[in-house]
Amino acid sequence: MSSVYGNNIKVTIFGQSHSAAVGLVIDGLPAGEKVNTEALQAFLDRRAPGRNDYSSARSERDEPEFLSGLINGATCGAPICVVLRNQDARRQDYDDLAGIPRPGHADYTAYIKHHGHNDASGGGHLSGRLTAPLCLAGGICLQLLERKGIDIAAHISELGGVADIPFDPVGICGEQLRALRLAGFPVLSADSGVKMVDEIGAVRGEGDSIGGIIECAAAGIPAGLGDPMFDGVENCIARIVFAIPGVRAIEFGAGFAAAGQRGSANNDTFYMDDDKVRTRTNNHGGVLGGITSGMPLIFRAAIKPTPSIARRQDSVRLIDMFEPAHKTGGEDIKLVINGRHDPCIVPRAVPCIEAAAAIAILDMMKP
Amino acid sequence: MSSVYGNNIKVTIFGQSHSAAVGLVIDGLPAGEKVNTEALQAFLDRRAPGRNDYSSARSERDEPEFLSGLINGATCGAPICVVLRNQDARRQDYDDLAGIPRPGHADYTAYIKHHGHNDASGGGHLSGRLTAPLCLAGGICLQLLERKGIDIAAHISELGGVADIPFDPVGICGEQLRALRLAGFPVLSADSGVKMVDEIGAVRGEGDSIGGIIECAAAGIPAGLGDPMFDGVENCIARIVFAIPGVRAIEFGAGFAAAGQRGSANNDTFYMDDDKVRTRTNNHGGVLGGITSGMPLIFRAAIKPTPSIARRQDSVRLIDMFEPAHKTGGEDIKLVINGRHDPCIVPRAVPCIEAAAAIAILDMMKP
Amino acid sequence: MSSVYGNNIKVTIFGQSHSAAVGLVIDGLPAGEKVNTEALQAFLDRRAPGRNDYSSARSERDEPEFLSGLINGATCGAPICVVLRNQDARRQDYDDLAGIPRPGHADYTAYIKHHGHNDASGGGHLSGRLTAPLCLAGGICLQLLERKGIDIAAHISELGGVADIPFDPVGICGEQLRALRLAGFPVLSADSGVKMVDEIGAVRGEGDSIGGIIECAAAGIPAGLGDPMFDGVENCIARIVFAIPGVRAIEFGAGFAAAGQRGSANNDTFYMDDDKVRTRTNNHGGVLGGITSGMPLIFRAAIKPTPSIARRQDSVRLIDMFEPAHKTGGEDIKLVINGRHDPCIVPRAVPCIEAAAAIAILDMMKP
Amino acid sequence: MSSVYGNNIKVTIFGQSHSAAVGLVIDGLPAGEKVNTEALQAFLDRRAPGRNDYSSARSERDEPEFLSGLINGATCGAPICVVLRNQDARRQDYDDLAGIPRPGHADYTAYIKHHGHNDASGGGHLSGRLTAPLCLAGGICLQLLERKGIDIAAHISELGGVADIPFDPVGICGEQLRALRLAGFPVLSADSGVKMVDEIGAVRGEGDSIGGIIECAAAGIPAGLGDPMFDGVENCIARIVFAIPGVRAIEFGAGFAAAGQRGSANNDTFYMDDDKVRTRTNNHGGVLGGITSGMPLIFRAAIKPTPSIARRQDSVRLIDMFEPAHKTGGEDIKLVINGRHDPCIVPRAVPCIEAAAAIAILDMMKP
Repeated sequence: MSSVYGNNIKVTIFGQSHSAAVGLVIDGLPAGEKVNTEALQAFLDRRAPGRNDYSSARSERDEPEFLSGLINGATCGAPICVVLRNQDARRQDYDDLAGIPRPGHADYTAYIKHHGHNDASGGGHLSGRLTAPLCLAGGICLQLLERKGIDIAAHISELGGVADIPFDPVGICGEQLRALRLAGFPVLSADSGVKMVDEIGAVRGEGDSIGGIIECAAAGIPAGLGDPMFDGVENCIARIVFAIPGVRAIEFGAGFAAAGQRGSANNDTFYMDDDKVRTRTNNHGGVLGGITSGMPLIFRAAIKPTPSIARRQDSVRLIDMFEPAHKTGGEDIKLVINGRHDPCIVPRAVPCIEAAAAIAILDMMKP
Repeated sequence: MSSVYGNNIKVTIFGQSHSAAVGLVIDGLPAGEKVNTEALQAFLDRRAPGRNDYSSARSERDEPEFLSGLINGATCGAPICVVLRNQDARRQDYDDLAGIPRPGHADYTAYIKHHGHNDASGGGHLSGRLTAPLCLAGGICLQLLERKGIDIAAHISELGGVADIPFDPVGICGEQLRALRLAGFPVLSADSGVKMVDEIGAVRGEGDSIGGIIECAAAGIPAGLGDPMFDGVENCIARIVFAIPGVRAIEFGAGFAAAGQRGSANNDTFYMDDDKVRTRTNNHGGVLGGITSGMPLIFRAAIKPTPSIARRQDSVRLIDMFEPAHKTGGEDIKLVINGRHDPCIVPRAVPCIEAAAAIAILDMMKP
Repeated sequence: MSSVYGNNIKVTIFGQSHSAAVGLVIDGLPAGEKVNTEALQAFLDRRAPGRNDYSSARSERDEPEFLSGLINGATCGAPICVVLRNQDARRQDYDDLAGIPRPGHADYTAYIKHHGHNDASGGGHLSGRLTAPLCLAGGICLQLLERKGIDIAAHISELGGVADIPFDPVGICGEQLRALRLAGFPVLSADSGVKMVDEIGAVRGEGDSIGGIIECAAAGIPAGLGDPMFDGVENCIARIVFAIPGVRAIEFGAGFAAAGQRGSANNDTFYMDDDKVRTRTNNHGGVLGGITSGMPLIFRAAIKPTPSIARRQDSVRLIDMFEPAHKTGGEDIKLVINGRHDPCIVPRAVPCIEAAAAIAILDMMKP
Repeated sequence: MSSVYGNNIKVTIFGQSHSAAVGLVIDGLPAGEKVNTEALQAFLDRRAPGRNDYSSARSERDEPEFLSGLINGATCGAPICVVLRNQDARRQDYDDLAGIPRPGHADYTAYIKHHGHNDASGGGHLSGRLTAPLCLAGGICLQLLERKGIDIAAHISELGGVADIPFDPVGICGEQLRALRLAGFPVLSADSGVKMVDEIGAVRGEGDSIGGIIECAAAGIPAGLGDPMFDGVENCIARIVFAIPGVRAIEFGAGFAAAGQRGSANNDTFYMDDDKVRTRTNNHGGVLGGITSGMPLIFRAAIKPTPSIARRQDSVRLIDMFEPAHKTGGEDIKLVINGRHDPCIVPRAVPCIEAAAAIAILDMMKP
């Protein structure tokens, strides 16, 4: 079903924006793996809102509670359940929106899917809030991967017309990725970061929002991972990355640009680097035929602008669409969304992308 | 693992480029559904090589043999197995390549994954040949979808610097899609098609290859399909589309362009069209929160240039990498790939994309 | 993996005997289904220990906390997570047992599986405690089934040489099954129940334990459920029933007795009962070829005697089996298990069996 | 779905009794594993009918054709597809039975499930014929297991009131199991075998049929296999064994007898056998908590008598049950099944049980 991911590990995500809690279960991790809760909290904090002036003011004090799966801080082979209480949920902010789908949100589609029984408040199960347990699951997986010499990090490669320096696709290494994860604003060029933050501020001032592109790299992945056809690396990463609300596109290696290249330019030729097979370029983004090549894994995801904006928008009021007596279904209205808005979720989406990649990669390693 | 797709229907793909046959099993289709084998053959023919001067000369006379699952031409609830014999396989064309991975192909990664035991001839299980059974499976699914009023078709939206007319994202209808599937060359603008074919010819003359972008639309999909989080529409379509060799990227609706838009521009506002809820624009590509909105479903996939080119390329000769005695692993060499090459697989990939979408959509309908 | 069940609904179980909590996630239930928490509590209470003199004294006050998935007491389409705190866990009772596997328990096998990192206290994830969330999941499923006219109940058909009256395999109806679920002691013959309770008391006096056989029936199941071969009714029910610790066998309809019958006796002949097809006998237990026939579904499961007994037993002390330096692996010792013991878990296993059947049947209905 | 089994390997079975072929796909086997086709044929021959006077006369010359997955006789990491042509299918034998469900068969339930579109001839997809590809899949898995020192064999432990010698549950070894697989009639006591064959002959003379119990053992399985709860050893083996038509019950170790034992008798106490932990008895059948203990794995399955008998039986003629105009649904009639009958399928079911166990065990080993 919808909320379970993985072949070799199984990650189950639950919760709604305004339910008592959100959380996750991970099953299938090897036993005896220490979980560094401080590092995990630090990872989770990168996703938290309210930390600075470019994100929403909702203060979610996300302190994970481990309900099962750990003994003396290490995995014991039992499923791990971690819960995050929804402490600062303001369900009343959404009362005025009852029956009025917000443009760009999943309110309308969830209403139809669940015949009007969906939890509409704050997006319910389809809220960005659900990326918190995703980050927790991914943060745990990341710790296991790091012990195997695999590092993953992402940065904002484009936001509001400002481009960051791209990853060096053949040279990016674990050390650089670990440093990137410590950055206050996730970019490789501090200068680009400043411009991006300015742009976010400008957009906020206009009561609007903006999206961006996130580039993610993984270094240290051994060659040979990925089950081709339906469980190749791209298939698995795409499947989990699209679970992050707002992701509209994903590309691996040269991605869309590859479509315009000649084969002679796109092909990455092999050479011997001492006793190791490497490619001189990395248009393939570390994946050939769904299987890792040992070169850095590189992909980019497009995040659409936050649909919640301060501006007045057109929408409809849904009127008992599932009552047979009513056939009209709705009426046009004007909508103003009150409450807290995040003019740009892209910085907060960066650890979510890393988390998604970590889960997918660990799953492919059949730990 | 790798070769089984689906939650409600299960599609299993088997075969190698030069095995006795390739084929598929579909389990879970409802009983009593007629399979129009002529229409299926016509669909499959759109993928076949050797039909014109822009594809390879390998003449695969793909005549599907149904081994099970049909009674009097209709599904009987038992799994359908269809087999395509590999009649024109020239294994010897690949003998010179033994141990030399072709750049851009999965030869090296498959070698590593399977410890040297992989079927290297013609790409083995990772060959584009495997899209033939994918097309068969998708062609069958398409017939079931059409009976439910759902049409799917794709066109080449970009190739060698030539752009086709894009789909009208709010107005595209089944009639137009069915007409497109009958086109000799899959474009909306005949003029663009001529230029693309010219470009393919030019590339062939240079011993090179070229990729392209395919845009796919589905009309008639009801609102409410897709299980959010990990089994949303994008997750499922991405998972299956990346099974097609050469796909490097996928985007839904506005896709990567959405990342650069403001929320006020990207949000698709709702309005009542008689008693139906619709959006005035379709940047969301028919999917919000992983669930269909009832608007046309639109996505684009990037196909990289065919890696097999006539030009001399750098590569390595792998020397018993899995023999403990040998540590060198390989030596640099020059490689020339003989045999038949497809300077551009994009036209043949068009029905593959349609097939992948058909399988994913039918699976989501829980037939 | 191990702790996720289902094709159309997904039930994930987590927790250990002495973790902070045990719980479950159910994904895939239709939206708009009321969950009667009082009825659910009553169902759960039937499994609770400490209610009378034939079960252990551990007082688990199991009050389910719903963390997600309900809005105004009804399902909203999001995964339901329910948590039960482990309030009365006495981890110290098990300290003396560290490294000494209890005969008949999974201590040794979990130790080996998890390389000594398993949670050994009280059986960890393999404890009977995990049947509490199973009952919660099943209790919810049961409420949905009852709304579709399907009733499920079980009784102790054999315990300590005492046999209960068997279900009437062709005539058992929902009314009888609902009445059975209200019984203080789950038997059809009150007289047999008294004898069974006496037998349990006698066994307890001897510091020993005893097992039993549970017979379960479901009435009102429509014909046509079950996907044959690997997802037939027997396959699915067996898969989930063996998740209940202590279950050693399962049989459907005539079961093992069928093996000794002639075909002429075992075949259930069809006849028209008004416009309904029925069988005169029900040796097939309501399932033919993995598909329900519309006759009552009947199966029996054997529960082994509780392995925790008051008597002194032989065992071994495991000595760092996963330390390379140590090769001995263990030494023979005598073991006395202190703490609370359940001389017979069979009465408490009855609702577990019903719950397992309810989950499997609802899953097969593709709700 | 119904026809795909496995978590780490995936076995897909297809075909009907009278379709062009039956067959299987196995995905996920490690590459480089030789498949001994002679040994495989010998294994398959043990299941074949028409070899002697206690089975049906249908002469299926089952010569497996490998369509994919092997290179030079060894696995190459691609899915293996093997096909068996249905050469001796006599569809006309079943013409008289159109619309008349045979008692004890799945004709009626398949008719309901598939709304009258099922392949009724010879049982269609629910025929015992489908155990041929199951045996092929299992026979291949068995070869991989044997290379890991694991042997599996089964014998008829009870048939027509005649009991065979049971396996020695603590001492059974690979050598004995391999010898058993070579036996002409699969019993441990030749004397019992003679009596069983006599009994089968007597039953045939009466136009009747008979069932039996098969006991299966696996020696050499390492401790620690099996994912507890829903993917424990019993769960997995039960799930696949119930895919064999006619299986009505399964028990592990002491099984149903355990229900009548005291804990002090049923508990298998541990002791050190040099540096190895073993149990003095094996009531647990080699599985504790769903995980293997390293002791022999032992289970028994009950096979019901063949439903096809020569005697006249009661049934109904189904009349367009899915036509809205017809409400009657059917009429009582007398039925005589012509054609070939197997008075006892138990000997032929023995390799099927071994095959099922082999698939389940290899899958649990995560090869």
